[in-house]
Amino acid sequence: MQIYGADYYPEHWEEKDWKEHVKIMKEVGIEWVRIGEFAWSFVEPAEGKYDFSKLEKVMKFLKDSGIKIIVGTPTAAPPNWLVKKYPHILPVDKYGRQKGPGSRRHYCPANEIYREYSKKIVEKYAEHFSPYADMWQIDNEFGCHDTTLCYCEATRKAFIKWLKSKYNTLEELNYRWGNKFWSQTIGDWDEIFLPINAPAFENPHMVLDFYRFSTDIHIDYMNMQIDIIKKYSDKPITHNLMVDFFDIDYKKLSKNIDLVSFDNYVPTPLYDPFRQSINHDLMRSLKKQPFLVMEQQPGRVNWKSVNENYPEGQVRLWIKQSYLHGSLGVLVFRFDQIHWGAEQFHGALLDYAGRKTSRCDEFSQAKLETNDVIEPKKEVAVYFSYENCWMHRINHINRNFDYWSAILEIYRAVRKLGYNVDFVFEDDEIQSYQLLIVPYAMYLPETFIEKIKAFNKPVIMTCMSSIKDEHNWLRKEFPHGLQDILGLEIIDFGGLDNVNVNFLGLNLKGTVWCDKIVLKGAEVMGVFKNGPFADWPCVTKSGNRYYVATVMSEEFFLVLLERLIPAKFVASDVDSVQMSDKLLLLNLKGLKNTVWSSSKKFVMEPFETREV
Amino acid sequence: MQIYGADYYPEHWEEKDWKEHVKIMKEVGIEWVRIGEFAWSFVEPAEGKYDFSKLEKVMKFLKDSGIKIIVGTPTAAPPNWLVKKYPHILPVDKYGRQKGPGSRRHYCPANEIYREYSKKIVEKYAEHFSPYADMWQIDNEFGCHDTTLCYCEATRKAFIKWLKSKYNTLEELNYRWGNKFWSQTIGDWDEIFLPINAPAFENPHMVLDFYRFSTDIHIDYMNMQIDIIKKYSDKPITHNLMVDFFDIDYKKLSKNIDLVSFDNYVPTPLYDPFRQSINHDLMRSLKKQPFLVMEQQPGRVNWKSVNENYPEGQVRLWIKQSYLHGSLGVLVFRFDQIHWGAEQFHGALLDYAGRKTSRCDEFSQAKLETNDVIEPKKEVAVYFSYENCWMHRINHINRNFDYWSAILEIYRAVRKLGYNVDFVFEDDEIQSYQLLIVPYAMYLPETFIEKIKAFNKPVIMTCMSSIKDEHNWLRKEFPHGLQDILGLEIIDFGGLDNVNVNFLGLNLKGTVWCDKIVLKGAEVMGVFKNGPFADWPCVTKSGNRYYVATVMSEEFFLVLLERLIPAKFVASDVDSVQMSDKLLLLNLKGLKNTVWSSSKKFVMEPFETREV
Amino acid sequence: MQIYGADYYPEHWEEKDWKEHVKIMKEVGIEWVRIGEFAWSFVEPAEGKYDFSKLEKVMKFLKDSGIKIIVGTPTAAPPNWLVKKYPHILPVDKYGRQKGPGSRRHYCPANEIYREYSKKIVEKYAEHFSPYADMWQIDNEFGCHDTTLCYCEATRKAFIKWLKSKYNTLEELNYRWGNKFWSQTIGDWDEIFLPINAPAFENPHMVLDFYRFSTDIHIDYMNMQIDIIKKYSDKPITHNLMVDFFDIDYKKLSKNIDLVSFDNYVPTPLYDPFRQSINHDLMRSLKKQPFLVMEQQPGRVNWKSVNENYPEGQVRLWIKQSYLHGSLGVLVFRFDQIHWGAEQFHGALLDYAGRKTSRCDEFSQAKLETNDVIEPKKEVAVYFSYENCWMHRINHINRNFDYWSAILEIYRAVRKLGYNVDFVFEDDEIQSYQLLIVPYAMYLPETFIEKIKAFNKPVIMTCMSSIKDEHNWLRKEFPHGLQDILGLEIIDFGGLDNVNVNFLGLNLKGTVWCDKIVLKGAEVMGVFKNGPFADWPCVTKSGNRYYVATVMSEEFFLVLLERLIPAKFVASDVDSVQMSDKLLLLNLKGLKNTVWSSSKKFVMEPFETREV
Repeated sequence: MQIYGADYYPEHWEEKDWKEHVKIMKEVGIEWVRIGEFAWSFVEPAEGKYDFSKLEKVMKFLKDSGIKIIVGTPTAAPPNWLVKKYPHILPVDKYGRQKGPGSRRHYCPANEIYREYSKKIVEKYAEHFSPYADMWQIDNEFGCHDTTLCYCEATRKAFIKWLKSKYNTLEELNYRWGNKFWSQTIGDWDEIFLPINAPAFENPHMVLDFYRFSTDIHIDYMNMQIDIIKKYSDKPITHNLMVDFFDIDYKKLSKNIDLVSFDNYVPTPLYDPFRQSINHDLMRSLKKQPFLVMEQQPGRVNWKSVNENYPEGQVRLWIKQSYLHGSLGVLVFRFDQIHWGAEQFHGALLDYAGRKTSRCDEFSQAKLETNDVIEPKKEVAVYFSYENCWMHRINHINRNFDYWSAILEIYRAVRKLGYNVDFVFEDDEIQSYQLLIVPYAMYLPETFIEKIKAFNKPVIMTCMSSIKDEHNWLRKEFPHGLQDILGLEIIDFGGLDNVNVNFLGLNLKGTVWCDKIVLKGAEVMGVFKNGPFADWPCVTKSGNRYYVATVMSEEFFLVLLERLIPAKFVASDVDSVQMSDKLLLLNLKGLKNTVWSSSKKFVMEPFETREV
Repeated sequence: MQIYGADYYPEHWEEKDWKEHVKIMKEVGIEWVRIGEFAWSFVEPAEGKYDFSKLEKVMKFLKDSGIKIIVGTPTAAPPNWLVKKYPHILPVDKYGRQKGPGSRRHYCPANEIYREYSKKIVEKYAEHFSPYADMWQIDNEFGCHDTTLCYCEATRKAFIKWLKSKYNTLEELNYRWGNKFWSQTIGDWDEIFLPINAPAFENPHMVLDFYRFSTDIHIDYMNMQIDIIKKYSDKPITHNLMVDFFDIDYKKLSKNIDLVSFDNYVPTPLYDPFRQSINHDLMRSLKKQPFLVMEQQPGRVNWKSVNENYPEGQVRLWIKQSYLHGSLGVLVFRFDQIHWGAEQFHGALLDYAGRKTSRCDEFSQAKLETNDVIEPKKEVAVYFSYENCWMHRINHINRNFDYWSAILEIYRAVRKLGYNVDFVFEDDEIQSYQLLIVPYAMYLPETFIEKIKAFNKPVIMTCMSSIKDEHNWLRKEFPHGLQDILGLEIIDFGGLDNVNVNFLGLNLKGTVWCDKIVLKGAEVMGVFKNGPFADWPCVTKSGNRYYVATVMSEEFFLVLLERLIPAKFVASDVDSVQMSDKLLLLNLKGLKNTVWSSSKKFVMEPFETREV
Repeated sequence: MQIYGADYYPEHWEEKDWKEHVKIMKEVGIEWVRIGEFAWSFVEPAEGKYDFSKLEKVMKFLKDSGIKIIVGTPTAAPPNWLVKKYPHILPVDKYGRQKGPGSRRHYCPANEIYREYSKKIVEKYAEHFSPYADMWQIDNEFGCHDTTLCYCEATRKAFIKWLKSKYNTLEELNYRWGNKFWSQTIGDWDEIFLPINAPAFENPHMVLDFYRFSTDIHIDYMNMQIDIIKKYSDKPITHNLMVDFFDIDYKKLSKNIDLVSFDNYVPTPLYDPFRQSINHDLMRSLKKQPFLVMEQQPGRVNWKSVNENYPEGQVRLWIKQSYLHGSLGVLVFRFDQIHWGAEQFHGALLDYAGRKTSRCDEFSQAKLETNDVIEPKKEVAVYFSYENCWMHRINHINRNFDYWSAILEIYRAVRKLGYNVDFVFEDDEIQSYQLLIVPYAMYLPETFIEKIKAFNKPVIMTCMSSIKDEHNWLRKEFPHGLQDILGLEIIDFGGLDNVNVNFLGLNLKGTVWCDKIVLKGAEVMGVFKNGPFADWPCVTKSGNRYYVATVMSEEFFLVLLERLIPAKFVASDVDSVQMSDKLLLLNLKGLKNTVWSSSKKFVMEPFETREV
């Protein structure tokens, strides 16, 4: 089943507009709409005064017109009457300042009163909308606008409860948090404070736990809603995730939902196809299942510094790219263009006059060009973990390092050679892949270390690997658990800006980091060339296990990678997917594009997909 | 009547110093002084303990010496005893933090207690100083130091009252604010919050109203003082405005005062003559009357990153430049140089030893060189509105756009050709002008749209024109109300960094913005050249109405402008004013300067003014 | 007596580890350890529940092993139980926000409750550890992490008390603070506020007093601890100062301790030898006595953006450099490497596996190469004052000026010629020096002005000299008290970015500042060349008193300096000390280095010291 549609806000319109909207939807080929996720004050303008009739009416009309409905619960934007009555549902920032209403996400998921009100409204939604719902979305973009971490008193109390459950005793907590350092021993659970406006460096173990707790409290809050909806509906339930977002452990969250959906916006100033692809692949990898693009950027947005228009064809391209990476389809955000509100400059399928734009045609065309749901073949596995994101943020050797950006460099290299990337997590099986890459994984669980050891195809590991344990402690020897198979020990490390590396006769640039390797069986393929580190090993090989002692650019990584997997085709601006029986290419350019594959050369039309 | 003088602080000196000061004033030619605007704690060191005798004495002495007096009310700096007694008179910032005393402007104009105390001290000022006052200044630089918007509870209550008066019903407010968006419907007036530390984008309609309210509350606070003074005095009343300042609607404010005065400081790192001129012309345009420079920068100031000295002649030049743009004269800030206080490094006419500096001579000389008050002829009208400033700030397509800077580029072009600029506002008549420019005016009132339509001389309009209504809603079609006369419709728009434009065979650079024009009768004079937008129309002409679909530099605009108004002279570093009977030129350079005019060539002396 | 050792944290380890640690200490040559300065919650995990047995045991073991002990009092990190019970011991920041626990230095030294608890724990420390202590350190790095200034209510009250004691009457305070400016007259002591979140520029006189008070309150807090310890121990007492730190007046503080110690970290991205030397020389100059490096950076640290490793030999070099500048020796921070806590990435003598690193060998080697304590000969005196640091910060002509960086330029020039630098303070004798440099000293006490006048060897003075009095008032004439001996008057001044200076035929660059000099007997050696200031005098000479009217780079200053003191040797990357009988050189390079001295040329080995 494919899902093609748009996000729609009937509450922004008069009843008379709905008819015209649905008429256009049918013309364009919209089969699904998402509705309701910011409509709390529309259905409950004052406490207890409900009016669901309008939304029910529009839903009935949509269903009668053959359009399926995803209902979003409205808890991402608590109404003003609730904020007025209970100001403490508002979150508190890192400096101890209460955040205010007037936009969205102004609530703390740990607040018991907000939970009670959330339950009530979700129950009402479920009661009224279950007859119409074909899918459910819980809340909207948890953590958006830097709201994952809250520093209010309700959070502190919930965090303490979470810690009690995790550590049982203060002795254990004091030990794991290293509380002897800087006199931080806790003598009573209530002596645990959130790190608000601390003069110096925070406890890295407590901050890691605070990230974990913040993921769990959001999941807990989500599950509370899921439980209610399941009483009324057996339709699939999802939450819409975000691009380039790592404050919440999406792997953990996604175990609690029926399918992954995400909002596909361009997070960079310019559209960068591989930046978009990597997010698609991450989303598919979370459940190793097809995913839905719940919100597809329609062209111009409103929240950037410079909100550009995009050339014609771009929406068509974005939809086709999602398809290539295994999506069920896309809902364009948004169908209707409004004249007011904080997103008044956001683009849509309609224009400000309510007319169809050329983006409607692109949507229709892309829909025709994408049949069924693609299942990419398992080829290259890249280890990823949200906890590593947090560890890299919390304590650092080099603040210029960004885990995700460094992984993106590696991803680009693999993709340019034409191979699919699956992100693999701790619990995933990895034996089906032909290559395993474990980049910059500070912490590796023992179970995954065993999987690496058991993997008998090529493995590439890097600096920073396995230097920490799950409590954010440094290991005693590095890389913990992997010295034998890599044939080396790391006896010291440090940051740097740039370093030259002599690798297979090429002069390459490393960045960020430099290990001091003691060889224990590995052979040296590349060495550092700079001053104090000159001639230290940088790239090593032990059987088919490779180790690189610095942070690599795409160019650097390609030199190693091409020895292990041959390029399937040569082209620029081409995205691809390897299916079981064929390779599918997508020309990312709005121009003709020449591709060489298996000694054939052919020309692709703008945004064309072609099987090879 | 001309006004030449200085700002003077007798309370900073002993009685014995006054005699010496007045002696120097007479020598230098100072005929006016401003006094008293920071002297609250000097005349009322503890609550209710007044001592006006010293200031009365110095005022009598000044009057007896033939020097006129502008009395400033002292409310810009509440005394510590008042802050101690009523801490809630202090303003609150956007993060909800109370601002503190210890500098100035530490009060909220909506606070009722502060208003009561303001009334008392102003009444006392009026009682005691009316016999001496020849003019009054209310408070000092409203809004300076980013104090226009206050987020305290008194402000919230006053804002709600203002909203009730504006909208009457919550239905109307909810509608105009688009409160269905993000569940912001208000069910009770007291549910209206100020936008403090909101996680995401604020409601653009409420923020616009908050700007409007903040202007009104300042005017209301000012008028409260004016009403008191008028009971005692029939002398003119003013308030000193600021350069490059747009937080308060000066057009609206200036309707409430008898004359406009402003403080002429160099807001840029280096002195930029046209940046200074444009502020003069704006000040003159507010009431279409001569204005006063209430504070003239004397040379070095103390509040910049680098506080430079200026070469000799600069003060003379600045005074002559004010004269050229229609000022009544200047008061130099300040007469006396003090050794202490937050402005101890600020320059003055005297030096730290109390001696006359060369700046005194420059003042005397400039005074001799400027006779009567100049009335510039009406030539080019440029539409301007403070509400557009705010709309451009609140919601954006391109955050790099600055309304005033973009207008300055246009202004420079007009001035280089030798034409006067008047800024015209909604209510102004425009038929006397020979050219009308309406730059980047997101919102145009219907009344002004009618004026544009009725104007039968050349009109130049630009991108962004008439895309919003007065509630900050986007219009349904663009440019609203002006499609017919411009012969086009804008069906889409977006931001960009830079774009090449082919205009009359020249390769020019547009920035910030790009419209998608559908021609409806206009002819194309220039086209975009860049990739996706290639060959889209950029400059169009429909009769004598011109439209430019991007943001223009001075160079770009000159290409269009020179087709409409011929250059009166050719020179660099020359300021000018067209009077009814002659063109007056001012050489801005401290060197000889060659000017070509009407096929004559002549050389101007440093800082010379010359009639042509 | 020399002091060589390391900072040690036995509380981070199990008892069984201590034995191994001490064994390694003995091997390496560690004779001193510092212990205990963050161990409060270790010895008092809940209020009143003390357990000193573990630390006593380890101290006994260390002493029995022949290792001397420096005991640090633990007040820099109050335990959580105390914060929980009395949240108001927490400091408050400049925006009025309470700072939080979770790191260190989260206390206000003015808080009476914190003082009571500090007394109790220090008394306990003194009781238990006096038998083992060979030296005491009070607290740890006062003012670190920007904690010198606190804005809490306890501070406000203590500040008022301090002001009463200083000024006696409000009349005097109002006068000295220039409170007539901006209506700041104080009518009651309790009307004095701390400058929290003020909208505009603060009162520069009050801010100067607030700095002074903040130094005094720290000294007072320190002395409270010293008095307790002296009841139990007659061993020397110190406090560990910091590099490049000027928030606290270290000159004043150091009068209260028996010896100066400081923490020698590289404050710049790259190790800059003269930046390190100048800090050593400042530390030696505070008491004109040998000083101790209480914490020597061991290589990589954890608190920079990029935490680099250092090449081998660097620790050896740093220790030798300290020796050259008169240190008693160094304690390396830290001996033991831990796996947890906020400093888990900080380097140490041991590695994460508990093994000796090559840094241990460097330590041992450096110790062998440094015998006795060096007493540098008095050669060049540079005037310095912490109050000038503050005055330069508080009010400015040019915000780009940094007092210490400007002094460093001068220092570099002197050191390159091979001369020792002593910083001299107000009370120091200066007649023993052969050259006196008084750079950028806004404020010069009358007593020091007299010393300058009486100094009959060459004197170099600069712009900004003696323009302020001790209350931060500007003088009436400049440079106050020194016009006669310099043969000039400064009648005006201003900021600038860069200016060309023609000095002895060379084209040099001045920065930051430009004086307008009126000659009164001095002869002109150099003139400004730029536009408005062209031909103004820049470098003057009156007898052997020199004046430079702008801020100089090292290159600029060298041109003047070389006329007064001849170079002792020519080399790059060489540090030196002139002793009474010999010149000692240290090759800063890890490579061979050629030096010319007295027409001899010789080659120094990496990190070699050599007598000349």
